[in-house]
Amino acid sequence: MASYKYKLYYFNARGRAEPARWMFAQAGVEYEDVRLAGEKWIAKKPDMPFGQMPALEVTDSSGKSHLIPQSRAIERFLAKQFGLAGKNEFDIARADFLNEYFNDIFQKIVFNKKDPDYEKKCKEFDEFLPQALEKLEPFVRDGGYFLGKELSWADIVFSVLTDILIQVKDSNVLDKTPKLKKLRQSVCDQPKIAEWITNRPKTDF
Amino acid sequence: MASYKYKLYYFNARGRAEPARWMFAQAGVEYEDVRLAGEKWIAKKPDMPFGQMPALEVTDSSGKSHLIPQSRAIERFLAKQFGLAGKNEFDIARADFLNEYFNDIFQKIVFNKKDPDYEKKCKEFDEFLPQALEKLEPFVRDGGYFLGKELSWADIVFSVLTDILIQVKDSNVLDKTPKLKKLRQSVCDQPKIAEWITNRPKTDF
Repeated sequence: MASYKYKLYYFNARGRAEPARWMFAQAGVEYEDVRLAGEKWIAKKPDMPFGQMPALEVTDSSGKSHLIPQSRAIERFLAKQFGLAGKNEFDIARADFLNEYFNDIFQKIVFNKKDPDYEKKCKEFDEFLPQALEKLEPFVRDGGYFLGKELSWADIVFSVLTDILIQVKDSNVLDKTPKLKKLRQSVCDQPKIAEWITNRPKTDF
Repeated sequence: MASYKYKLYYFNARGRAEPARWMFAQAGVEYEDVRLAGEKWIAKKPDMPFGQMPALEVTDSSGKSHLIPQSRAIERFLAKQFGLAGKNEFDIARADFLNEYFNDIFQKIVFNKKDPDYEKKCKEFDEFLPQALEKLEPFVRDGGYFLGKELSWADIVFSVLTDILIQVKDSNVLDKTPKLKKLRQSVCDQPKIAEWITNRPKTDF
């Protein structure tokens, strides 16, 4: 593992930065969890690639900084750094396509209650979600995780996603997919992740 | 480069499979360009991960097959195989986050003319697109490509995306971002890609 210094920039929220935070926790790697709001964010925005957060600032041993925006690009970078990407190229591709699929689910979650189509979109999501989870269930391997016995970023990203699903839907959302439910529990029971969940800043999302 | 046999499954369209096809062309690697419709697709759908296309079937030298769904996971896998991913971990992350950004643009393109919000969404896209391209322009490096002198999958995916933008918008869509315009032309002028564009099956999208 290269010796880098990390700063993770995001709003004071779990949102699209939380999977990276779980990955830092699991790897036991220090980072600065920078949470920007209001004036501070407006002042920082022009420095951020595409004016976006989350963004990960990686400073290498020569002191050079690299800014990586886009949550999945950040997660993929950290997965490689932390040994959470998969052991061979087909497992790496598997973790990768699973994460693309999780994003398909994430993007259909209806957050905006002021959307005039809120009820319609919620109904569509209620129909879509059980089918999506059912399609995902067979991808849990015998070892209990998506890649087998070895924990990967796919397991972590999925478990953070289910946090949101539990919040916007209900706590039984994984009851019909027992392998996924167990996988999530195994991730949340990882001591360092459990510690992060207990101690993290309390935010609405 | 490992010795694999490739089959790319998709509909008879450019769509989400076309970047992979350009990558095969550029790398000069043979593959079977399987285009499914109607009954044939319905028969094949249950074999596809999540029931989705595109999907890439990779058969290794032992005869074992691996199915990779999700366009960006396919492209990322091929990029590594074909030396189009980037030379170091920060360039790899750069190509990666650029591709995430291209996808943000792609997802906002309004294809469905029957959508009751078609006009509204088109107007939003017309406002969004020039800003998105303007933000992207400084990411072209001095060498002419996103990573510098070296062609990467980021250049290819962007150039395929602009094909769609030119089709749904107009041929001058890159006129205000000269570096992006030049980058696209350089990609399309690659002899093997130019040959593919000339000889590929003619489809609406």
